[in-house]
Amino acid sequence: MRFVVDGMGGDNSPSAVVEGAVMAVNDFSDIELVITGPQQAIQDELDKYQYEKGKITILDATEVISTNEHPVMAIKKKKDSSINKALQLVKQKEVDGIVSAGSTGAFLAGCTLIVGRIKGIDRPALAPIMPGLNGPFMVIDAGANVDCKPHYLEQFALMGKIYFESVLKHENPKVGLINIGSEEEKGNELTKSVHKLLKESNKNFIGNVEPREVTDGDVQVLVCDGFVGNTVLKMYEGVASNLFSMIKKNLMSSLTTKIGAAMSKPAFKKIKKEFDYTEYGGAAFLGVKGICIKAHGSSNAKAFKNAIRQAKKVYDNNIIEKIMEEIEKTTENKNKL
Amino acid sequence: MRFVVDGMGGDNSPSAVVEGAVMAVNDFSDIELVITGPQQAIQDELDKYQYEKGKITILDATEVISTNEHPVMAIKKKKDSSINKALQLVKQKEVDGIVSAGSTGAFLAGCTLIVGRIKGIDRPALAPIMPGLNGPFMVIDAGANVDCKPHYLEQFALMGKIYFESVLKHENPKVGLINIGSEEEKGNELTKSVHKLLKESNKNFIGNVEPREVTDGDVQVLVCDGFVGNTVLKMYEGVASNLFSMIKKNLMSSLTTKIGAAMSKPAFKKIKKEFDYTEYGGAAFLGVKGICIKAHGSSNAKAFKNAIRQAKKVYDNNIIEKIMEEIEKTTENKNKL
Repeated sequence: MRFVVDGMGGDNSPSAVVEGAVMAVNDFSDIELVITGPQQAIQDELDKYQYEKGKITILDATEVISTNEHPVMAIKKKKDSSINKALQLVKQKEVDGIVSAGSTGAFLAGCTLIVGRIKGIDRPALAPIMPGLNGPFMVIDAGANVDCKPHYLEQFALMGKIYFESVLKHENPKVGLINIGSEEEKGNELTKSVHKLLKESNKNFIGNVEPREVTDGDVQVLVCDGFVGNTVLKMYEGVASNLFSMIKKNLMSSLTTKIGAAMSKPAFKKIKKEFDYTEYGGAAFLGVKGICIKAHGSSNAKAFKNAIRQAKKVYDNNIIEKIMEEIEKTTENKNKL
Repeated sequence: MRFVVDGMGGDNSPSAVVEGAVMAVNDFSDIELVITGPQQAIQDELDKYQYEKGKITILDATEVISTNEHPVMAIKKKKDSSINKALQLVKQKEVDGIVSAGSTGAFLAGCTLIVGRIKGIDRPALAPIMPGLNGPFMVIDAGANVDCKPHYLEQFALMGKIYFESVLKHENPKVGLINIGSEEEKGNELTKSVHKLLKESNKNFIGNVEPREVTDGDVQVLVCDGFVGNTVLKMYEGVASNLFSMIKKNLMSSLTTKIGAAMSKPAFKKIKKEFDYTEYGGAAFLGVKGICIKAHGSSNAKAFKNAIRQAKKVYDNNIIEKIMEEIEKTTENKNKL
């Protein structure tokens, strides 16, 4: 399989991206990569490492899209950007997918505009996997679609279930609707409608999941609109980060607690590892006609390598084809009615 | 001043409610209380404590509204419930306000239907104060209005600012809009419209606040619709609770970390205190013609006493009158245009 990597995407590009790419081809013998970006800059990075030369090629791209630019405008204007050129390769089926740590807005806009939606999918959705108390969980949509119609979320549920089953090898993942209140009649207009739809159409649907329970990890696929999903994700990051700051500050406030902290270190190290979202790679953008993985903007080489491994898993498990089949089935069923 | 207390509201009623009420009249010499609930049951609880007898009276109420009942239906049907009778006292101006730890839905519905909205206020909003890393912050609305029009949030901002200034004595509190993305053009249809409105009308408005930064406590008044607000609040509770569980589990996993944990205890105790939301009392329901404080359902006596103290602060600082004045001013200004 062959993927393209946006060499200039992310806070640590191109260095971390190139290093992660090298790690990926060294770790996985069946992966070949194309890296887009300024030829010389990418080559200079590549020269630092040992790897089988034929497995990584460079596609020269002179422009870069920053996170401050208007996503759609930038994608349309900057034809020679590393992300744009990478997406063209996906469109032309010269590669099987893309991994980028660059501007989320530009990535999502580019995947939709250039790679294109799967027939029958109304809105592709961003689906990161997060570590929960009792296991990993997915939030879908995590920010691609801020204003949603009920049937968009019905499709999110379907795509999320397929991904979780196939890539995370979870038999019968539970699908829940993020809602304020566990009862069916609770929530806003959107969630009330979605609840009805999911109850009828999705056999894995277990009902509403209150935000308090999201990070428990007892429900694997958490469906919501992109505004709520992004809020849930960013709250998770923010609260965890602030709590750890607070703990650190208080542990450093006296000699006794300092010694206590030193002795507690192995426990905190383990927690840090459990919370390491880079283990799961990036967020899959599901519903487009290609494997599109968005790595975290702050990805280091290891995180980037894991995002490439994730693309491989999506490829190995035929997720795109499975989504196509399932969507076709539901459309057929609806037409029959 | 005189408040009514819903004797049968909350997980620990009537015992914690009555104990908290006694603590309040003992601590604050200018407070008198009415407790609604089954005469004998409340009296039995009261008999356990020392206090100036004239300061607490009981108003007999034989029914109770549980959290499982449909809020509006229950308020309309159960005329003899502790919450309904309490709210009637507020309506008839026999008391200055109400404190309840009962069903949030029934409380909000009752305050709106029985006590009534302030003239000019479109939607009253629930406004809890939470502990942040660098100071307390308010989320308004935290769940009373799940589907909002932009000008509702404009009014939430105004009420939140008045409350924070007057009750928390914060000169010039910063007002922010919870939004996914810091730039003006980010967000969904609602937040984009609200951003424009607040930029024009609220001089304390500092722009969007991303969910990641909410718990920093650098922005005091955080405006959002009730669905997002409730999500933010419950995520905060859920993530904090899960993180502490995880820390505890890992600290108990070896002898060294167990000793470390014992030595670190003072630090964790301090954090627990910093996180003690009961210090701030309950959540004010702003925009109704009376002081309406919703205490947490799991309130113990101290939390309930603090909720009564909060009602006193709202009274002492004339919040209702201030909201009335400000809303009248903005309405006049709009009519002039």
